[in-house]
Amino acid sequence: MSGKVQGFRFGAVSAGIRKDGRIDLALAVCDRPAVTAALFTRNLVKAAPVLIAAERASAGLARAVLANAGCANAVTGEQGLRAVQQSTQALAKALGISPEEVLPASTGVIGAHLPVEKIAAQADALAAKLTPEGHEDFAQAICTTDRWTKIAEAEVEGAQVLAIGKGAGMIHPDVGGLPHATMLVFIFTDAVVEQAVLARALAEASEVTFNACSVDGDTSTNDTVIAMASGASGKTPSEAALTAALTQVCDKLARSMVADGEGANHVAEIKVVGLKTRSDAKQAAKTIATSMLVKTALFGEDANWGRLLAAAGRAGVAFDPGQAAISIGGIAIVKDGAPIGAEAEKQANEVLKQPSYSIELRLGDGPGEFAYLTSDLGHGYIDVNAGYRS
Amino acid sequence: MSGKVQGFRFGAVSAGIRKDGRIDLALAVCDRPAVTAALFTRNLVKAAPVLIAAERASAGLARAVLANAGCANAVTGEQGLRAVQQSTQALAKALGISPEEVLPASTGVIGAHLPVEKIAAQADALAAKLTPEGHEDFAQAICTTDRWTKIAEAEVEGAQVLAIGKGAGMIHPDVGGLPHATMLVFIFTDAVVEQAVLARALAEASEVTFNACSVDGDTSTNDTVIAMASGASGKTPSEAALTAALTQVCDKLARSMVADGEGANHVAEIKVVGLKTRSDAKQAAKTIATSMLVKTALFGEDANWGRLLAAAGRAGVAFDPGQAAISIGGIAIVKDGAPIGAEAEKQANEVLKQPSYSIELRLGDGPGEFAYLTSDLGHGYIDVNAGYRS
Repeated sequence: MSGKVQGFRFGAVSAGIRKDGRIDLALAVCDRPAVTAALFTRNLVKAAPVLIAAERASAGLARAVLANAGCANAVTGEQGLRAVQQSTQALAKALGISPEEVLPASTGVIGAHLPVEKIAAQADALAAKLTPEGHEDFAQAICTTDRWTKIAEAEVEGAQVLAIGKGAGMIHPDVGGLPHATMLVFIFTDAVVEQAVLARALAEASEVTFNACSVDGDTSTNDTVIAMASGASGKTPSEAALTAALTQVCDKLARSMVADGEGANHVAEIKVVGLKTRSDAKQAAKTIATSMLVKTALFGEDANWGRLLAAAGRAGVAFDPGQAAISIGGIAIVKDGAPIGAEAEKQANEVLKQPSYSIELRLGDGPGEFAYLTSDLGHGYIDVNAGYRS
Repeated sequence: MSGKVQGFRFGAVSAGIRKDGRIDLALAVCDRPAVTAALFTRNLVKAAPVLIAAERASAGLARAVLANAGCANAVTGEQGLRAVQQSTQALAKALGISPEEVLPASTGVIGAHLPVEKIAAQADALAAKLTPEGHEDFAQAICTTDRWTKIAEAEVEGAQVLAIGKGAGMIHPDVGGLPHATMLVFIFTDAVVEQAVLARALAEASEVTFNACSVDGDTSTNDTVIAMASGASGKTPSEAALTAALTQVCDKLARSMVADGEGANHVAEIKVVGLKTRSDAKQAAKTIATSMLVKTALFGEDANWGRLLAAAGRAGVAFDPGQAAISIGGIAIVKDGAPIGAEAEKQANEVLKQPSYSIELRLGDGPGEFAYLTSDLGHGYIDVNAGYRS
């Protein structure tokens, strides 16, 4: 599909926020007040744009998203808030709308001040760049350590859905239910949808996608997921269909973010089944998915099932290790808590060479199950993060 | 001091459990039933030696510790338990004591079977090796990825305390109150002490040392801390003095383990002060100390205070980020949640080049404070853990 969602236009410019001169300021605008739902980081330390976007999004209607890379504007206090107010004001003026209708989002270094004058200076140029096809530029401009842009599209009962995300490191969203670090996601649809329906669909989709993936276990101060519906298609999908479509695009973005995990070579789906509750299964899957020893074993392409089981054992959920069964890519390597044999592990090691695979731990006979996405932990992660600010 | 603690003899041999032929089987024996207290991993998945040592130690008296490297014997089920019974039985026979008086401990690869016949074959040779000065060999034999042996000594009101530890990776003890991975610690004293007093002193000492340090956040299936008192000195130190002496040796071992954290170059003490309770402060300090982004920043010698504050923000404890103050090695870099300036950060970066330093976060005016030891996360950790089994 062309990527065009009726009612929306997109654009991006270089405002010099990033040191390298790449485009770093992105704008999406709806030609009418769009029905809006949003989720934000649950980190107690919230960046200024998160505080302001959350307040503005609570109106349930918005006209624009203004997002920048290069600076997270996560300085606490008045200065950070003022920077957001001034920069969105400049854009609102250029667009002829109210600043209250502009939702801000920022990603980049935490603790630096947002260069508001650089953003204001680009307001008119950015407004002039808006086109229905500008979403690729938008996606490019919000990238930080991302190696590729993240775009997902879906069609739902005649309406279009376009989702744009970024996120590679500090990825462990926990936004209103979501958790990773820093993830920005913007979803645009031309469906006709009530605000309460959009909010529910977004929360449900996020819970099983963004809130079920991790690169490094660090939840950002800036995680933001915003969904806007223009209604311009005139189509009104059912809530179930809309939820499915949002889940589809969010899942694609989540997988792309984990695959792009800083320095990652593999995406592993850690599926825990057989526990008492879904919540227990999520806790176990998350503990395994964030274990440094598990993640380094994945980097080493080593079917080190002892680490998998040991991580489950410290998750704080009840199970009988003597009943544990583990399979990697469908190859059973552990049964009744004991290894099946060297041949099985050799086959499993072959699976671990693939770019993506699934690891299943059956820890009992209960109905609780949950799948969590994670990446391997290799030298690239160290390189990216040890020198991020220099 | 000579390292001799009256009543104890030590020895080690190579039993071929490790692939490289180094000494890997260690024995400590008391010339009488020693008053014994012990703490074990709280991981739900417990290795066979932990299950058996916990049962035997509950008697409050023991004669010997039999520890091996090269295999954690963390296979669940009967086979692992049988291997422990048979190997301790062989040693008990060689020593002329009951198997119930021999406390087993293992460290090494999880999920492999303990080669019990190799251990049994060395029982007589090992018993013949015992000398009062054999503690260095004992310390060497229990090393896995350790780069150095870990021994600490103290004198308490005329009695001697000798502590021997190992631990470098999978270090995040949580033993009956302790947490790291795999940490083995054996403390021998010739003090006269009641079992209840020894147990309390050991638990108190462990809580602020082993349970307050982390290399990688992964709690082992095998963490073990055993304290044995022969009473051979005839000296009866006060409980307070004994607790202080145990805390001193445990602190020294904990610092040595974190310094030896796989691939680590730095030991950082993360001190959180000003929270409502000590438990809140511990939670915040632990979250910061186990954050991959914080640990990679420490590797990069980068005073990235945004990551410190963001990690505290996701710890689940209440504080006002706008009141946060952060200092590194006494250099203030954040006040009222905002950076003090580039010059201060430059000075802090110099502190981060040192092998060990302290980072303090003041997050309010409350009485709750806690200090947690951690290491930096660099390429060495990946190298050690990606290929551990190969």
